[in-house]
Amino acid sequence: MSEPLALIVAPFLTVLEPAFRDGGVTTARAWELTEDQRGHVRSIVHAGEVPLAPEFLETLPELGLIACVSVGYDGIDVAWCRARGIEVSHARGINAEDVADHAIGLMLAAWRNIPALDRIVREGRWVQEARIGAQPSLGGRALGVVGLGHIGAAVARRAEALRLKVQWWGPRANPDAPWPRAESLLALAQASDILVVCARAEAANRGMISREVIEAVGPQGVIVNVGRGSLIDEDALIEALKDGRLWRAALDVFVREPTPAERWAGVPNAVLTTHTAGSSNEAVPLMVAQAIDNVRRFLAGEPLASPAPPVAG
Amino acid sequence: MSEPLALIVAPFLTVLEPAFRDGGVTTARAWELTEDQRGHVRSIVHAGEVPLAPEFLETLPELGLIACVSVGYDGIDVAWCRARGIEVSHARGINAEDVADHAIGLMLAAWRNIPALDRIVREGRWVQEARIGAQPSLGGRALGVVGLGHIGAAVARRAEALRLKVQWWGPRANPDAPWPRAESLLALAQASDILVVCARAEAANRGMISREVIEAVGPQGVIVNVGRGSLIDEDALIEALKDGRLWRAALDVFVREPTPAERWAGVPNAVLTTHTAGSSNEAVPLMVAQAIDNVRRFLAGEPLASPAPPVAG
Repeated sequence: MSEPLALIVAPFLTVLEPAFRDGGVTTARAWELTEDQRGHVRSIVHAGEVPLAPEFLETLPELGLIACVSVGYDGIDVAWCRARGIEVSHARGINAEDVADHAIGLMLAAWRNIPALDRIVREGRWVQEARIGAQPSLGGRALGVVGLGHIGAAVARRAEALRLKVQWWGPRANPDAPWPRAESLLALAQASDILVVCARAEAANRGMISREVIEAVGPQGVIVNVGRGSLIDEDALIEALKDGRLWRAALDVFVREPTPAERWAGVPNAVLTTHTAGSSNEAVPLMVAQAIDNVRRFLAGEPLASPAPPVAG
Repeated sequence: MSEPLALIVAPFLTVLEPAFRDGGVTTARAWELTEDQRGHVRSIVHAGEVPLAPEFLETLPELGLIACVSVGYDGIDVAWCRARGIEVSHARGINAEDVADHAIGLMLAAWRNIPALDRIVREGRWVQEARIGAQPSLGGRALGVVGLGHIGAAVARRAEALRLKVQWWGPRANPDAPWPRAESLLALAQASDILVVCARAEAANRGMISREVIEAVGPQGVIVNVGRGSLIDEDALIEALKDGRLWRAALDVFVREPTPAERWAGVPNAVLTTHTAGSSNEAVPLMVAQAIDNVRRFLAGEPLASPAPPVAG
């Protein structure tokens, strides 16, 4: 039989198999793929942060589409794919508000030390004297958004309601943005009490939140990351937290996921969540439906609904 | 010597002794008070949530003012005091924005499960499959504010930026409020996905967040308390969390403070902080300065700057 197959490479996406089946997309699992099936694989349905090696893609002669359920697609070499006639699609405009809610939740959790206070209560270490002047006030501080896309703008709107002064930086000017653009990422970091990283990850911006940028946010500053782990020099971040060169950090994304627990043992002032910012009950079905629509369009020879934007640089 | 003394009753307020001294107020400690000093006590400088028994107040013949550094004064029987010529003052209009920041931080920490996810990462229990559809989306839900004072209004403004629909309830109508007032507290709870308790605690509203109100918020609902612990039937809240009749709760205040750790062992879906919502580095000196000003005015026979409002009911 010659039914076109959509390949699942990331094992955790098997929870979505019923949704794909209901949408008329027949999936196969990469780790169970037979040689007979290999030639029928026309697409991969994927979580874009999971690397797809070109050497692996070359073993799929009929592959024409990588349909990411996720917004990001940093695990994929888009230029390499396009040169070989493989298209890439992603989720667009669906979960930005959810991600922004999580970013603001992480920022407040870090600023007000909520997970640490929760541990203090549960371990019977509540000391009344420690309550007074327990933290700096948030109002009037400067919040810098790195990457003013859908997510960054949604973060900025929420930050204004918290009486924060908003600036942003991104590689492309945006004259329509209602917030001022800093001259550079470093200038934004120097001006910010809180830096929220919402950028799209690409090869060109790997490690852009460097040691220098981290130190510019500084010993009274907080870094929040809801973009991708690769955007931050994570080793430098950990060292800065240990030395007090950065006050606090709140991270939903990591260089490696799941991030190893031992990596964070003894690292103070960090709030860590499991890359859940964008995967709400409401958003996931819409993101899956968009991926299904892209697979259907590809097989029918129609233009994709949400192709990955051209690679920068 | 006849210098007027301001008495400290709550031991944790001794950290403020230098600030009072710098403000020209001479303090004495209740647990070190000599019989000679007793007649010179003209005021008590106090944290209003700490009970002051009438039997104790009667041992201070020259007492004329209880100056609370806090916004709340629920540990004081104001009517009893006034009948005996003892005035009560409190902090007013200083830290409402700080408290609202903490309330929103608690709400997001509960909704997005941030402290629990932080434990999962640190304990090496991050399971990729659990990421997908990890929580309901927040946008479009209904947030109910209990008590629309300075704090409640500041919470409501932030909630709107999070795309929440805001209603409120309080015992007195407020035609100027930009948000609709529910017919009753129970009606507000029934209509709310999230109930944020910001009311002033009084004898008349003790336990107002009753079992019935808690169950009306329900198994998909969240209760946040930044008011006072006495406002909630805490035993009923704990039972509802254990039974799943309430989804989650986030509490900065408790019936007894510090709340005993063993009380929360085995209670799921609770985020607990140490009554730090209002005590920022910036607000505390202003609150102390207001208390000092009230002591000075009282001793000079002038009207208080921020007397406690008349007791309701």
